[in-house]
Amino acid sequence: MKTWSNNRICGLLGIDYPIIQGGMIYNSGAKLAAAVSAAGGLGLIGAGSMRPDLFGDQIRKARTLTDRDFGVNIPLLYPHSAECVEVALAEGVKIFFTSAGSPKKVIGPLKNAGCTAVHVVASPALAVKCQAAGCDAIVCEGFEAGGHNGRQEITTMVLVPECVAAVDIPVIAAGGIATGQQMAAALALGAVGVQIGSRFAVSVESSGHGLFKQAVVDAGPDDTHLVLKAHVPVRLLKNVFRDRITALEAAGAGRDELAAELGTGRARRGMLEGDLAEGELEIGQVSGLIDDIPTVAEIMDRLLNGFDEALAKLHPNT
Amino acid sequence: MKTWSNNRICGLLGIDYPIIQGGMIYNSGAKLAAAVSAAGGLGLIGAGSMRPDLFGDQIRKARTLTDRDFGVNIPLLYPHSAECVEVALAEGVKIFFTSAGSPKKVIGPLKNAGCTAVHVVASPALAVKCQAAGCDAIVCEGFEAGGHNGRQEITTMVLVPECVAAVDIPVIAAGGIATGQQMAAALALGAVGVQIGSRFAVSVESSGHGLFKQAVVDAGPDDTHLVLKAHVPVRLLKNVFRDRITALEAAGAGRDELAAELGTGRARRGMLEGDLAEGELEIGQVSGLIDDIPTVAEIMDRLLNGFDEALAKLHPNT
Repeated sequence: MKTWSNNRICGLLGIDYPIIQGGMIYNSGAKLAAAVSAAGGLGLIGAGSMRPDLFGDQIRKARTLTDRDFGVNIPLLYPHSAECVEVALAEGVKIFFTSAGSPKKVIGPLKNAGCTAVHVVASPALAVKCQAAGCDAIVCEGFEAGGHNGRQEITTMVLVPECVAAVDIPVIAAGGIATGQQMAAALALGAVGVQIGSRFAVSVESSGHGLFKQAVVDAGPDDTHLVLKAHVPVRLLKNVFRDRITALEAAGAGRDELAAELGTGRARRGMLEGDLAEGELEIGQVSGLIDDIPTVAEIMDRLLNGFDEALAKLHPNT
Repeated sequence: MKTWSNNRICGLLGIDYPIIQGGMIYNSGAKLAAAVSAAGGLGLIGAGSMRPDLFGDQIRKARTLTDRDFGVNIPLLYPHSAECVEVALAEGVKIFFTSAGSPKKVIGPLKNAGCTAVHVVASPALAVKCQAAGCDAIVCEGFEAGGHNGRQEITTMVLVPECVAAVDIPVIAAGGIATGQQMAAALALGAVGVQIGSRFAVSVESSGHGLFKQAVVDAGPDDTHLVLKAHVPVRLLKNVFRDRITALEAAGAGRDELAAELGTGRARRGMLEGDLAEGELEIGQVSGLIDDIPTVAEIMDRLLNGFDEALAKLHPNT
């Protein structure tokens, strides 16, 4: 069985296993983050779908659910991001994952407060910028990841070794990772840990709507695609809304037309309210491998067991 | 150091290492295939860019270059595919990789002749069909692969475990694999071998034009994209021609308009004749990790050493 005492990311974040739960709007509240941290990984409360007051409430709530440290994920292009950083700092959060924007915006205050700062990237060029800005680690997230995604379309298999070659700070792999075998693959590529979204979104403790979770369970290998590339690229599960977007794109629709069709509030409608036809259903391509809705503790067990099984198969004499 | 004596694909194909060189038009002639087989992998002579008489010549030429077995790759949608199958059978070839089409077309004659038949797939659904048709193994090729590609856009990280779960026959991983670390990742995902294209295309022994090889060496992480999706999806290196295609696609061009702009002979022009502006430059996303033009023997050494390095890092106590 793999021991993790020498793992760089476990040391940096004070966790037992190098497994981080990604911030996911409408899915990653106090309950999910606390469950992942309690199980020895790192839970993140995602600020992207919360107003600052709700975000503060969720941080305080998570403290009542576990004694282990958890972190926050704050998308920096979100209108309330600066306020959310202030709220989390005031609440004494010590681990910040940021995404969607430049880490330069916030790295000063975070490092002054003695926090650990990690930024999510989709290219080795941004990885280099994060290291130069003072980030402690990066998450590199491949094309297969759910939700908002890079325009470069670099997959996890290619992006991880590119980022590992580009920086000295620890690299956490994300995108397409839901099993222990995929975790082993990510570490073989040079990552020191994994960030997992979709698999944790489809757990008992996730705050997503039950119908959304079931739709992911029912999804097949070809049911997510990256769409809205001319606006903001996002990987969505197939539904009535996404089909309309795909048809508009095939007809050459521009940014404004796509933004108008998207409107506002669709992510909430899909993932929190369970409108499977008209909501945005943000989830990763790995949906095709997600077949049930277990507890976080069960998911962690499967990840660690699957990792050990993969290692055994790679043994020099097998 | 890893030993490979128990590896299923080494046993099936009679090779020392589970490394297969992909068939690549204008790159994989006798010289490349013989060099890969001589180094302990499996070389494939690619029929896709050859008329049947040239294909027969190349098979005979490869026999003069190595005593080891090599195979052929025949794209089944190619006009001369049936004739090429006959030529290879007449020449006594025993290992057939087929792609782009249904393996049902050719599996009967191949099995009757005592050949090993492997088909390339981009989805677990096609993997299941290949097993039912009687294929001995499949290559599952992810979105990051160069050249022609599936519409599903499933990445290697996700596609490999999906195919491994779907079939009992051996699964060979392809797409995004140019290093031993990536080979280790593929095997962690459950593949028993790898098929490598781009890395072997950029070798001394590849028959591609020197300017094409150098363009891949010079390429950065964001320089290949999958285009022509409304026609036949293909991953190409950025150049003047691809920029025109991308502009047409953004404007909503249909299949006919794209086919007209593509015309004929562009792959030959780009990869064999070295027209870097107007040719089709088919290569994988892993170009960003390819920085030189070594011999096949050197590439094989790097792959095996990199694999062992990845395994050492994954050791239970590190």
